[in-house]
Amino acid sequence: MSDNITASDIASAKALAQSLGQAAQAIEETIDALLPPVPGDESVLIDAMRYATLGGGKRMRGYLVTEVAAIFGADAASALRVAASVEMLHAYSLVHDDLPAMDDDDLRRGRPSTHRQFDEAMAILAGDALQTSAFEILADGATDPDPAIRVALVTALAQASGAAGMVGGQVIDIRGEGRALPLDQVRRLHALKTGALIRYAAEAGAILGRASASDRAAIHAYGRDLGTAFQVADDVLDATASAEELGKTAGKDEAAGKSTYVSLLGIDGAREEARRLSLRAMDSLTAFGARAASLRALAQYVVERRN
Amino acid sequence: MSDNITASDIASAKALAQSLGQAAQAIEETIDALLPPVPGDESVLIDAMRYATLGGGKRMRGYLVTEVAAIFGADAASALRVAASVEMLHAYSLVHDDLPAMDDDDLRRGRPSTHRQFDEAMAILAGDALQTSAFEILADGATDPDPAIRVALVTALAQASGAAGMVGGQVIDIRGEGRALPLDQVRRLHALKTGALIRYAAEAGAILGRASASDRAAIHAYGRDLGTAFQVADDVLDATASAEELGKTAGKDEAAGKSTYVSLLGIDGAREEARRLSLRAMDSLTAFGARAASLRALAQYVVERRN
Repeated sequence: MSDNITASDIASAKALAQSLGQAAQAIEETIDALLPPVPGDESVLIDAMRYATLGGGKRMRGYLVTEVAAIFGADAASALRVAASVEMLHAYSLVHDDLPAMDDDDLRRGRPSTHRQFDEAMAILAGDALQTSAFEILADGATDPDPAIRVALVTALAQASGAAGMVGGQVIDIRGEGRALPLDQVRRLHALKTGALIRYAAEAGAILGRASASDRAAIHAYGRDLGTAFQVADDVLDATASAEELGKTAGKDEAAGKSTYVSLLGIDGAREEARRLSLRAMDSLTAFGARAASLRALAQYVVERRN
Repeated sequence: MSDNITASDIASAKALAQSLGQAAQAIEETIDALLPPVPGDESVLIDAMRYATLGGGKRMRGYLVTEVAAIFGADAASALRVAASVEMLHAYSLVHDDLPAMDDDDLRRGRPSTHRQFDEAMAILAGDALQTSAFEILADGATDPDPAIRVALVTALAQASGAAGMVGGQVIDIRGEGRALPLDQVRRLHALKTGALIRYAAEAGAILGRASASDRAAIHAYGRDLGTAFQVADDVLDATASAEELGKTAGKDEAAGKSTYVSLLGIDGAREEARRLSLRAMDSLTAFGARAASLRALAQYVVERRN
């Protein structure tokens, strides 16, 4: 889409950057309030949890929650709690992924990864407790007055992040290192590993907003295509951008012998695939008209970002 | 209490052994049904989750759920789901505790620990997914028809197992290695590390059974003292029993330079403390009369067990 940039595209990109930045700050403040420092010998655990979740990240998952929730008129404070919760879940997965026994990565968001800043034991435990906190926040009465909404959120997050979602995808990813996976298996891997949580974030906003079944289906389709587009673009960035641009180690996929969208489709093919998915994600939003402008801009952004 | 064994004690010990064994089998079958093997590349994850949770363990936490639930007339199938869930949460904590970066333990329940049977990455991920499954099971409509009961269970488990509970206690434990902790800090450590989940298990049965506030308070007090008695007895066993008897490495506390009830009170003093707590736990059950016979027998068992 970078071929035909219009004035309206530039305006919406600027509006998105501002909107993303504002949401990121509000989500950051919400996490900060939900994880206050504590006294006592266990204070280092909270320090590690805060290090892993605060001070960085685009907050795309949290932004998805707040923007979808706003379409359906959900309470903004509730949406921020759910946004903070999904960012904690995401942070736990990054902390554990970076461990020496997993991806063994020393760098995350341009800073030492959690096990380098603290130690391995604290990184394992901080990740564990961040997962627990994510569920605790969803179940709390402050998130929504209706317990049925809260259990729906807990169930959706568990399905997206557990063995049949994110963690299952991570296992397929590890098992696939050093051998060629066909495209349909790479698609399934990413639908689980990164796609499920991104789709959940969109759906969580719809759950909070008591969206109708048809509106939920549209948001589901949007989240699914956005998540895949994001991952395809991520593969392109991993193959083309520098570590400085990424704020994390570059060229990891090739070094690990992983099958990626780039190894299967080539860089141009992967870029084309990302554009196609981004456009299809936008198409799912037709019924929401102007209310979905920020979600459309986000779908454009994920395939054009440089980090 | 081994000084004055009566015929009634022997009868109740036999009844408890039978009751514990039956419950352990029913809980095992429930976990088996909740974690069916799957096809695909992620099957090894489910295998590791099943290895970590099935085929061993006394199921004391699960037993607590089912026995307390029975006192209040809760549905038995619901109680078994909650019992399976707390055993999964407990198993996740053992899998992560055994990792090289934590206690570095090769033996668990007489078998190789999960990271020895599989590998470190799979042990980290299986623990992660077991935690997720525990919350997913609680939030599921099959656990209880009332969403308010389900969110209450999720909240109670999160509080017992997260930074302000089990994981927080684990951090205090790690930080305390190699230096002397006073008795009040050792009490706090164990109230968090092992006590919180045992207390939760008892309380979960009361939540499922819609117990009154005063009955819940009695169960809370029972669970608190039972959990501490269990840990004090555990310290005695670690100092006195063989690895063969324990099914896990013995003498770990002293080797790690940990302050324990035994290092602080001596073996006889720790045994006396365990008996005192066990009796106080039983005292909390007075209002339940004969319905609490198995809970009384359990309080006696935890301080007399040999493994």
